Amino acid sequence: MASAVTEYDTIAAISTPPGEGAISIVRLSGDQAVEIAQKVFKGKDLTKVESHTINYGHIVDPVDGSLVDEVMVSVMLAPKTFTREDVVEINTHGGIVATNKVLQLLIGSGARMAEPGEFTKRAFLNGRIDLTQAESVMDLIRAKTDKAMQVAVNQLDGNLNHLITNLRQEILDSLAQVEVNIDYPEYDTEQLTTKMLLEKAKLVSKNIDSLLKTADSGEILQHGLATAIVGKPNVGKSSLLNRLLDEDKAIVTDVAGTTRDIVEQYVNIDGVPLKLIDTAGVRDTNDKVEKIGVERSKKALKDADLVIVVLDSSRELESDDIQLLEATSGKHRIIIFNKNDLVPVITPETVKQINKDDTILQTSAITNEGIEKIKQTIGHIFNSGIEDSSNNVIITSARQAGLLRQAKENLNDVISGIEAGMPIDLVQIDMTSCWDTLGEITGESYPDELITQLFSQFCLGK
Amino acid sequence: MASAVTEYDTIAAISTPPGEGAISIVRLSGDQAVEIAQKVFKGKDLTKVESHTINYGHIVDPVDGSLVDEVMVSVMLAPKTFTREDVVEINTHGGIVATNKVLQLLIGSGARMAEPGEFTKRAFLNGRIDLTQAESVMDLIRAKTDKAMQVAVNQLDGNLNHLITNLRQEILDSLAQVEVNIDYPEYDTEQLTTKMLLEKAKLVSKNIDSLLKTADSGEILQHGLATAIVGKPNVGKSSLLNRLLDEDKAIVTDVAGTTRDIVEQYVNIDGVPLKLIDTAGVRDTNDKVEKIGVERSKKALKDADLVIVVLDSSRELESDDIQLLEATSGKHRIIIFNKNDLVPVITPETVKQINKDDTILQTSAITNEGIEKIKQTIGHIFNSGIEDSSNNVIITSARQAGLLRQAKENLNDVISGIEAGMPIDLVQIDMTSCWDTLGEITGESYPDELITQLFSQFCLGK
Repeated sequence: MASAVTEYDTIAAISTPPGEGAISIVRLSGDQAVEIAQKVFKGKDLTKVESHTINYGHIVDPVDGSLVDEVMVSVMLAPKTFTREDVVEINTHGGIVATNKVLQLLIGSGARMAEPGEFTKRAFLNGRIDLTQAESVMDLIRAKTDKAMQVAVNQLDGNLNHLITNLRQEILDSLAQVEVNIDYPEYDTEQLTTKMLLEKAKLVSKNIDSLLKTADSGEILQHGLATAIVGKPNVGKSSLLNRLLDEDKAIVTDVAGTTRDIVEQYVNIDGVPLKLIDTAGVRDTNDKVEKIGVERSKKALKDADLVIVVLDSSRELESDDIQLLEATSGKHRIIIFNKNDLVPVITPETVKQINKDDTILQTSAITNEGIEKIKQTIGHIFNSGIEDSSNNVIITSARQAGLLRQAKENLNDVISGIEAGMPIDLVQIDMTSCWDTLGEITGESYPDELITQLFSQFCLGK
Repeated sequence: MASAVTEYDTIAAISTPPGEGAISIVRLSGDQAVEIAQKVFKGKDLTKVESHTINYGHIVDPVDGSLVDEVMVSVMLAPKTFTREDVVEINTHGGIVATNKVLQLLIGSGARMAEPGEFTKRAFLNGRIDLTQAESVMDLIRAKTDKAMQVAVNQLDGNLNHLITNLRQEILDSLAQVEVNIDYPEYDTEQLTTKMLLEKAKLVSKNIDSLLKTADSGEILQHGLATAIVGKPNVGKSSLLNRLLDEDKAIVTDVAGTTRDIVEQYVNIDGVPLKLIDTAGVRDTNDKVEKIGVERSKKALKDADLVIVVLDSSRELESDDIQLLEATSGKHRIIIFNKNDLVPVITPETVKQINKDDTILQTSAITNEGIEKIKQTIGHIFNSGIEDSSNNVIITSARQAGLLRQAKENLNDVISGIEAGMPIDLVQIDMTSCWDTLGEITGESYPDELITQLFSQFCLGK
């Protein structure tokens, strides 16, 4: 049996999405993966098959000999595996009960239940991928649009890793040069060295800037643009949402206060995933069930990146409308004059709570008028940042963005230090900090507890 | 390339449950499976790898060369595959978008989108499994309890197939004997032959009887015992349901009429899956949304195998309660006197709408009193049929049960024909019909359109 790079215990988990399907996979990774699988397998001797082969057989309960499932077992020996350890994947017939039973038998035979993300964590700890690639694995799984998928798969391919590694190399080269000058002070090249260091700091800083520019769009690309649709009851929020979704996911009835639950849906606008949050109204209510909905609406409003305020243009503004317009005044918002198919009673000109930078659109969920315009407006606002990015490297994680900002701070200290005439060995400390900070992005110098926390956000079985 | 048993086009589908997970599988089957996969794959030449091997690489859009996912591709050549055709399974990183993209690229490269159950249908048409085994595949996937899984996997292993095949062989042997007698009438063995035929018919009939005895339990085992919990608002239906489920899945509030949606949950009682149907009350209402719930409740009541009628023992019976007791009078039911923790106002003795064969239980969802008793009562009623079955062969499909009943009719005709002294060649016709009918169970003689209909009930990708 090939042995893993580092010695860990053998872990097991169901690696396919939960639910009924045609195939489910139970995955094992670790030194004992093959031996443990063999204990519950009836078919070929798995400990003697070649690596990267698929083997037909049955899973049998070793205690009572009862049949559990007919399976195909993939045996992949280290090091050419996802984790760089021995990996066994048992493909079952896809039932929930049978798949869980297979997992339980493996646990009973010596495997440990894997923690979320533990397979990917091992891939990282065993040096197969860096931390940006590990993060891109989850980005890829959670991608809501083709564009988001593209960005994730490029990062998985190592694009960000290479970029960061190159920047760190630049810094290392400059630090080496500084060392030379410190070791051989007789060569009076200090001025030259300082100039070189300043140029290098500015160059790296410029590269970081262009990466950081993609972060907002990357965040939206990956997690969606949280958009709250608000309005008093019966202005047509649900119908509007349905029009944007092009399907009837939310309940639409003519009873005020119907939408009791927040319905969360993604809509793809030019590759940008919009996380549409439909909400119960925000009016005061004594209905206990509805009250929960109103509380959630207020929270949704607070968390929203964009607010779509819906007014009924066929009715006079009521205090509810005015309250809403005032409550959302500071937010990035689009104001909708809905029910445009009816005779208008209010117009954009008559509503004095509108600010000059608000976008105003007239729509009808009945005739579909203005719906395309809403999509265009949203697409236009949030696509610009991404288009700028060359080579498809886009920062999609808050962790990466935070570290890039910190690295930029370090460089600012280098630059201001040099400009203030600080001694070169003090400047050197800030430059080294920058090198360390960038190293945290790829995981070259990342504390254990943070690694644990990062992978705990992964899904089970990955 | 090994060729398939029969020539079909190449089909493709996502074979893992829908949703985000660690691994998703896109499956191909057909003569062109490997060639089509190769068109979108960057890595080894799949057309040259050995059968039953796993190959690392990338899926690349052949149009613009863009990267879609990092994958492991399993190549399994006919005939040792699920379908007996060439099968390729592409394991992706589990994202919804990337997995769909892979499928789209395969469709664009010459594969056809598989119909539900089409892979299993090919396994059947190519003779790898019989129809009872094909049905057990879906039984296995949909199994709700260990017991149901066990029955399915035994059927998948061919137990029912063998049993039916043996019965058909018995019939065939007897028919052959009849042929001998017809061909050689000089051997005056007609009386002996008739006796043999009668014995054989009775033997097969007895075997069919014992199979049919398992059908009701099998149906419940596979599809769950549809149980409706009814009662006027606020008698504690949802709290009771939660106690049975041991978790808080349904909303419980003290506002009458809260439970707007029918919540469907399975609870495992001694291996029997109970499909609990919680319902909104059945009172008349003008509330539009609630009205939908009430309609559904009435339907649920009609479809239920078992009704649990919940009364509030701390309040006087109201007309709603009496209506409910009368409406469910003909159903198999358990009557619950709930809120037993409060001072009782009504008792089983005071309620005159109770029949003598109703089961009456006193419970409290607050103190948990009587909950275990409900489970025991249900388990006791519906477990008996299954325990009787030897060799774990249980009829779980209505199709199989229907055909068995029809085969039994054929045998009844044989028996009554012989007893009425009908000519042997007429009796022979009924015996042959029985042989045909049993053949439909395993699919030996099953019409095309019925095959199509049967597999259309399968899940996609299977």
